[in-house]
Amino acid sequence: MEFRHELAQQLRVDSIRSSAAAGSGHPTSSMSAADLMAALLDGHLRLDFAHPDNPENDHLIFSKGHASPLLYACFKAAGAIEDAEMMTFREFGSRMEGHPTPVLPWVDVATGSLGQGLPIGVGLGMTISALDNLDNRVWVLCGDSEMAEGSIWEAFEHAAHYRLDNVTALIDVNRLGQTGETMHGWELSAYSARARAIGWHAIEVDGHDPSAIEEAFNEAESTTGRPTAIVARTLKGKGVSEVEDRTGKHGKPLEDSEAAISELGGYRDLDVKVSAPEGGKRPRRFDSAAAELPSYELGSSVATRKAYGQGLRALGTRRGDVVAMDGEVSNSTHSEQFREGHPERYFEMYIAEQQMLATAVGMQVRGWTPFSSTFAAFLTRAYDFIRMAAVSRADLCLMGSHAGVAIGEDGPSQMALEDLAAMRAVHGSTVLYPCDGNQAAQLLEPMADRSGICYMRTSRGASPVIYGPEEQFPVGGSKTVRDGDHVTLVGAGVTLHEALAAADRLAEEGIRARVVDLYSIKPIDSETLRSAANQTAGLITVEDHWPEGGLGDAVLAALADTGTTAPVRKLAVSVMPGSGKPAELLGQAGIDATAIAEAARGLVR
Amino acid sequence: MEFRHELAQQLRVDSIRSSAAAGSGHPTSSMSAADLMAALLDGHLRLDFAHPDNPENDHLIFSKGHASPLLYACFKAAGAIEDAEMMTFREFGSRMEGHPTPVLPWVDVATGSLGQGLPIGVGLGMTISALDNLDNRVWVLCGDSEMAEGSIWEAFEHAAHYRLDNVTALIDVNRLGQTGETMHGWELSAYSARARAIGWHAIEVDGHDPSAIEEAFNEAESTTGRPTAIVARTLKGKGVSEVEDRTGKHGKPLEDSEAAISELGGYRDLDVKVSAPEGGKRPRRFDSAAAELPSYELGSSVATRKAYGQGLRALGTRRGDVVAMDGEVSNSTHSEQFREGHPERYFEMYIAEQQMLATAVGMQVRGWTPFSSTFAAFLTRAYDFIRMAAVSRADLCLMGSHAGVAIGEDGPSQMALEDLAAMRAVHGSTVLYPCDGNQAAQLLEPMADRSGICYMRTSRGASPVIYGPEEQFPVGGSKTVRDGDHVTLVGAGVTLHEALAAADRLAEEGIRARVVDLYSIKPIDSETLRSAANQTAGLITVEDHWPEGGLGDAVLAALADTGTTAPVRKLAVSVMPGSGKPAELLGQAGIDATAIAEAARGLVR
Repeated sequence: MEFRHELAQQLRVDSIRSSAAAGSGHPTSSMSAADLMAALLDGHLRLDFAHPDNPENDHLIFSKGHASPLLYACFKAAGAIEDAEMMTFREFGSRMEGHPTPVLPWVDVATGSLGQGLPIGVGLGMTISALDNLDNRVWVLCGDSEMAEGSIWEAFEHAAHYRLDNVTALIDVNRLGQTGETMHGWELSAYSARARAIGWHAIEVDGHDPSAIEEAFNEAESTTGRPTAIVARTLKGKGVSEVEDRTGKHGKPLEDSEAAISELGGYRDLDVKVSAPEGGKRPRRFDSAAAELPSYELGSSVATRKAYGQGLRALGTRRGDVVAMDGEVSNSTHSEQFREGHPERYFEMYIAEQQMLATAVGMQVRGWTPFSSTFAAFLTRAYDFIRMAAVSRADLCLMGSHAGVAIGEDGPSQMALEDLAAMRAVHGSTVLYPCDGNQAAQLLEPMADRSGICYMRTSRGASPVIYGPEEQFPVGGSKTVRDGDHVTLVGAGVTLHEALAAADRLAEEGIRARVVDLYSIKPIDSETLRSAANQTAGLITVEDHWPEGGLGDAVLAALADTGTTAPVRKLAVSVMPGSGKPAELLGQAGIDATAIAEAARGLVR
Repeated sequence: MEFRHELAQQLRVDSIRSSAAAGSGHPTSSMSAADLMAALLDGHLRLDFAHPDNPENDHLIFSKGHASPLLYACFKAAGAIEDAEMMTFREFGSRMEGHPTPVLPWVDVATGSLGQGLPIGVGLGMTISALDNLDNRVWVLCGDSEMAEGSIWEAFEHAAHYRLDNVTALIDVNRLGQTGETMHGWELSAYSARARAIGWHAIEVDGHDPSAIEEAFNEAESTTGRPTAIVARTLKGKGVSEVEDRTGKHGKPLEDSEAAISELGGYRDLDVKVSAPEGGKRPRRFDSAAAELPSYELGSSVATRKAYGQGLRALGTRRGDVVAMDGEVSNSTHSEQFREGHPERYFEMYIAEQQMLATAVGMQVRGWTPFSSTFAAFLTRAYDFIRMAAVSRADLCLMGSHAGVAIGEDGPSQMALEDLAAMRAVHGSTVLYPCDGNQAAQLLEPMADRSGICYMRTSRGASPVIYGPEEQFPVGGSKTVRDGDHVTLVGAGVTLHEALAAADRLAEEGIRARVVDLYSIKPIDSETLRSAANQTAGLITVEDHWPEGGLGDAVLAALADTGTTAPVRKLAVSVMPGSGKPAELLGQAGIDATAIAEAARGLVR
């Protein structure tokens, strides 16, 4: 225990040192959890730092990502990084970022938006137990402030539901948030009672008592059938009188680092031997086999969401790495098709979109290819998780169904009208929007192969099949489905069909409208748009989306990027819809064939 | 009790009738809760339907908004609407939308995105007790499926923390979600144990036993110091053998409505006399008094977030209707200034952004003017709540601080780089982005006066004061801060200062750059942009934001809308940043003065 105390003091000293060198950071939030981390490193964590890809490695997630000085001090103590690198904390170009990101091989995911590390840890626990069939553990260090995030309770629920005894949450109850005391202060029972009510094993400990911590870790490791929360009473800034248990000491270096280091017993350079896993087991993998994608006859009708479900089932046969999950609407998104075909690779996430995203992030960390689906409108619930997944360099396939006013009677709460804007504005994202069944099915494998966040928007209603089943749809491409040299109509999804109908009407009037199917909204086919701008009087863009940030803005940006100036008229939904028949709502929104034809006449005139 | 049974049967029959007429809807989800609603209407709800603005009215929120047929059947039974209007359910133009919205005067907020009604109900409870100082109650009907949303648990936490004995959650545990059984089925204790662990009073009842329900309602009304959850075991589709407790019967009309109505005892036309409140009390209001806005000297430096806090404190003095809240970062957003000046009108929402938004929505329902603040990056956590607030026709003032790579060392998890896109894509929203302290302070009162969701983006670092304290900044306007006829630089916030620096450099080379401060990104000053496009070689837009959906796209859309074609070069953040000094990160992103000047030279050439 003396070694652990010394190690903890070293972690505190190093947290103070790196933050002092940076001139910013969160040393006091690091100091409270140092004893917990010393115990974890010295005897409980099984992590081969030299082989970060070892599938039997434990996972260590700092859900309280601002305690990054502590994490980096742990990496140094474990010999994974040098002191000199640790001391580049928060410098431009350093891997020691202000909050941890996967630029470091031992960091699975970015944290720093609170309340996300535990949900992702639960996703990892699900992956290890239900997919990989291995024994490694997931350790998540949580702050007490972040326990106020609802996402934390989604994680608690799912961990209990899936009986994840491989997950241990270390809750660092240092009482003090950024601005003052947390809602529950040092009332440890507030956390343990909630955890127990949900089905966790919960242990309250003095987070600075090495023996008590050791006992709690042993208890966590021997608990079966349920996850464990170690609720640790700690002192923020523990060990240094300048900051210990004081308000106003969050998120800044200590004023007198030298004195603080002295008070902690001075600089140390202890090494801790973190055990490597020795199981020699390989994660379970599922077979891949030949399977035909679903195909739909030209001229028949099918909803793109249905093609998604049927296509995903086929993709699941073709590729054993593909897994799927849904936010309790699998009979609407048709992900139930995958569940029926591959029940052992399907996960019901209930109505907990944040946990759904977190689970997907966890699964891709361990090499699986997750497809997550719900109504597109409800993916907004997890927008912070999607944003952070991009910082985590995660590869995710997301499908949002029931887009736009075209859903009809259910009304605006169910209509995604901002999803294209939100998803385009995710770094490195891909945004796809098929208009027919064959297109939707064909786009699934490219999604699975793609890096980053890949989003497919689908529609509720059946739409005519206009492409043959062999047609290919490269990401970043488009299809010119009707030639013409007077004006160009650009649509995708439901509006592509409205554009085709408009082109028919215009043809009767002698106006030759080109129609472009912009199924890949990001990346975008700038070349085709540029040509259309140069060869016709201008472009009409039509989208079942608010006017801001969607297809129309994407077209304008693509033209600007290629230096093309041309008249563009954007049609989009501009009044708050109510209920009604799809055609009534498309008409009211001014994005139906009538509105498109009228706008085209205006441009040609 | 016999009347209540008959009334409940009528509510079921009417739910079946309206859904049958619509050909869609959720009758079975309505039928499970009919006995609860019959009891509420007949003796517990105090609501003057003839005077929906009576401040002493109870609030009734259907958090399970898909049970709209039941809600409209209640309104009919209470005499608020005619049967004929009820039967226009889901028709185009009808107030009987698929999910309830405030087009009906007795509907406070839109629901339909699950897990939002209870948080908003808690916000209403906080408003009534802590601001209005009245006795009315808030009744929230929750589905059991939506209990999986983390936002529900944020609401439970806050209701207990604020000891809201005016809030009653009616949890309709009908066991069946959309696709199958919920996580907890009929295990009522799963819900009651969680509620009790958090500090609620919880009562388990048979949700079809009028006497048990009556007892539970009485107990809820007589419980003080804490909220009550009535956890009711119910049958989905109760009373009709075709659908009762069967899977696959969610969200669709009954197959044989006639038979179902017979089985329920046929059509009824009972009236229920809902009691009106008789207290005659008026809600507390706070005084308004003259107060100077903060002002900053030309040439001095101040962070816009600081000007927000200081300005909001002054606005709070000027206007007694202004209230404020923060997600536990009030010393970063400077909303602590308001807390210090007006402690009785400030609410600490801890790190629960969804509940923060829900509280704000509740407060504006009752006539208050809420300002909510946190890091702009973390507003994404509540994006679904913001989207739904627009459907609720809510008037909200939101402030997001620490925008963009300019925050520096903290790294990408803390950098809002998608907020402009997300907020622009909210229906009816206003998006403001001040570049100096006087501008930030002056924009606050226009925000308070504005309808819809009004968002202000602020910056972490101090920036030079370039406007005098008397300068006015109309929403929808812009400022041409430097004249020039060669090229136009368009920035806002931190990039405005970079643009000015670029203009200085260009001037040395004989290039006369016009600089436009686009502080109002939505609505946007199209006329100034159009003139600039016509009078100069083109526009350079610069934003501390991803390239998609932000300032640059807004400018392109404004030009397109005015029929203006001109070269536009967009500068934005296109690589994932790490940590570093603000200047290093602005440079890496290609949005600093050097990059702007280079782009301008390219356009002029």
